[in-house]
Amino acid sequence: KRKYKIAVLPGDGIGPEIMREGYKILNVLQKNFCMNIETKEYDVGGIAIDRHGIALPESTLRGCENSHAILFGAVGGPKWENLSSYLQPERGALLPLRKYFNLFANLRPARLYSGIENLSPLRFEIVSRGFNVLCVRELIGGIYFNKRKGTKYVNSKKYSFDTEMYYQFEIERIAHIAFKLALSRKRNLVSIDKANVLETSVLWRETVNTVSLEYPEVNLSHLYVDNATMQLIKNPDKFDVILCSNLFGDIISDECAIITGSLGLLPSASLNEAGFGLYEPAGGSAPDIKGKNIANPIALILSIGMLFRYSFQLIEISNIIESVVYEVLRLGYRTKDILQKNNNLVSTSEMGDVISKFL
Amino acid sequence: KRKYKIAVLPGDGIGPEIMREGYKILNVLQKNFCMNIETKEYDVGGIAIDRHGIALPESTLRGCENSHAILFGAVGGPKWENLSSYLQPERGALLPLRKYFNLFANLRPARLYSGIENLSPLRFEIVSRGFNVLCVRELIGGIYFNKRKGTKYVNSKKYSFDTEMYYQFEIERIAHIAFKLALSRKRNLVSIDKANVLETSVLWRETVNTVSLEYPEVNLSHLYVDNATMQLIKNPDKFDVILCSNLFGDIISDECAIITGSLGLLPSASLNEAGFGLYEPAGGSAPDIKGKNIANPIALILSIGMLFRYSFQLIEISNIIESVVYEVLRLGYRTKDILQKNNNLVSTSEMGDVISKFL
Ligand SMILES: CC(C)[C@H](C(=O)O)[C@@H](O)C(=O)O
Ligand SMILES: CC(C)[C@H](C(=O)O)[C@@H](O)C(=O)O
Repeated sequence: KRKYKIAVLPGDGIGPEIMREGYKILNVLQKNFCMNIETKEYDVGGIAIDRHGIALPESTLRGCENSHAILFGAVGGPKWENLSSYLQPERGALLPLRKYFNLFANLRPARLYSGIENLSPLRFEIVSRGFNVLCVRELIGGIYFNKRKGTKYVNSKKYSFDTEMYYQFEIERIAHIAFKLALSRKRNLVSIDKANVLETSVLWRETVNTVSLEYPEVNLSHLYVDNATMQLIKNPDKFDVILCSNLFGDIISDECAIITGSLGLLPSASLNEAGFGLYEPAGGSAPDIKGKNIANPIALILSIGMLFRYSFQLIEISNIIESVVYEVLRLGYRTKDILQKNNNLVSTSEMGDVISKFL
Repeated sequence: KRKYKIAVLPGDGIGPEIMREGYKILNVLQKNFCMNIETKEYDVGGIAIDRHGIALPESTLRGCENSHAILFGAVGGPKWENLSSYLQPERGALLPLRKYFNLFANLRPARLYSGIENLSPLRFEIVSRGFNVLCVRELIGGIYFNKRKGTKYVNSKKYSFDTEMYYQFEIERIAHIAFKLALSRKRNLVSIDKANVLETSVLWRETVNTVSLEYPEVNLSHLYVDNATMQLIKNPDKFDVILCSNLFGDIISDECAIITGSLGLLPSASLNEAGFGLYEPAGGSAPDIKGKNIANPIALILSIGMLFRYSFQLIEISNIIESVVYEVLRLGYRTKDILQKNNNLVSTSEMGDVISKFL
């Protein structure tokens, strides 16, 4: 029987408490589907800084290496905010994990669940049309990782620089991911760039156009990033899959997330070519509500769903997790962050229990 | 008597028709305040491509040089969309104009006018708190203009690159502008960067912090650009002045603009150290409504207001223009783009007439 090994990185803030609910789900799946799931926990983020002096200790990296997937809670908090940003929990843990495991494909779905449109910051006329966007972000290239950066002096004038750079093959491989995902959805792909200013964007657009020839069923269009920012707010229902570079994806995917009004429901996956991946809720460590048993575990649970889908190729189990979550939401079970009139307020652990029961 | 020379660049699409209303306003001001205003028209954008083969002809540049300010309509349209993006009307006209005249300070106010909150894409609970944001964008530095860019091959792998770069003095001068503007407003400045990833952002943040010592009355904070994108949508009322680099400002200022729901009301100014400036409505050339006499001339008229304020230092006249516009809006005169129930629908030219009358 195949053994599925998951490296569990609860992290800081609400990370550990939502992870407890994640364990519940994993246990139920293990029983119901007679699976052999092995989980091992490792320190990451602030707690790792406290215990090992660094946000991503060697032991954690080794543990992840010996697993088939990483389940990540959340990192960061006020305690570590005064560290130089390069050492901080978020940056110090996430960027090296992404790079080390070659997790070039970041998938961030952002959908509006029917029944909670009222939580969206967008007005009713817009959200009543619904939306379901999948942001595909290149995650290990571009200006994030290029080594040509620094701070220097010329004629005693100080300056700093960073280099945005993309190899054509980096654009090709993320474009293929986006086109394939579009095929399984509404076959609509919008590629974001700033081709009227950036040379990398010109290559980006050219390359995406070339890759598109292999996917004649997908309707491809291009938007400048500034215009995309506006269109997403005005007409989110016009989007299906969105393809972005690392930097633009950082901004655009957060915009997609916020307009749903429910960060606590949004999972994410960061994958490499081999299907190894890091799965992480979109919401962050929310230190202000830590330990109160009010955090929403659904984003983490849906991240487990993505993990089963993309790293374990257990599509059916993934579908089951997702439909159970939708059903539980439909029945009105809600943590505080997504509570509305006539809903059934549940705590973090109760939400985990309800979802486990339905599974 | 001082002569005020304005280079008028109507451009394409609705540019010429809103500019006609601009002339009306200039004529009234000229009469009412016994001013000596001289306007001269020059081609720019698509029409300049058609007539001179280039979006910014030498003659236009010379004309601008011989003036005290540039009043810009709008450029671009489907006719020129298939040109390579470097030659297109927007990019080919705006970027060289900004660089040539050292227009490093881009001011983009975005406010919600009371009475038209319903036009905002944001929900009522958010817009009912109102907002009034001024985006200050560095306009001639950063990744937009750095010459270290290109497309190359290494080991037969194709790649492209661009260089984000800021001299400390470039950050200092735009920061001073932002702090000074904050002093004249709610004394609240948010500086946007990505200091957890970019070396230029680390210098940006450091430099803004240093400049802030000279403005102890201004409350400064920093936000990462991804987070800023979210906060602007959730809590636009928390913002007063926003300071951005060229690339981040391109995105953030468009986000600020769209959440007002009324692009047709938003002016902008791009200034150099000497107070010379280019003034331009935010909305673009809107080729689809060209020639229909329905475009909103208010953004252009408020741009004239900014021109009087920043290039002519005629603050009182600028105040008058602004308060007349607010009054006209308050009285319910509306072009189609901002029409609501019980309003008085007026055409482009009627709106110009009404505002002239009130002046
Ligand atoms: C923490 C930070 C480095 C990271 C990023 O910029 O990628 C985060 O914002 C994200 O989007 O996962
Ligand atoms: C046309 C384009 C080059 C320009 C920019 O990116 O600055 C435009 O988007 C703007 O914001 O004025």
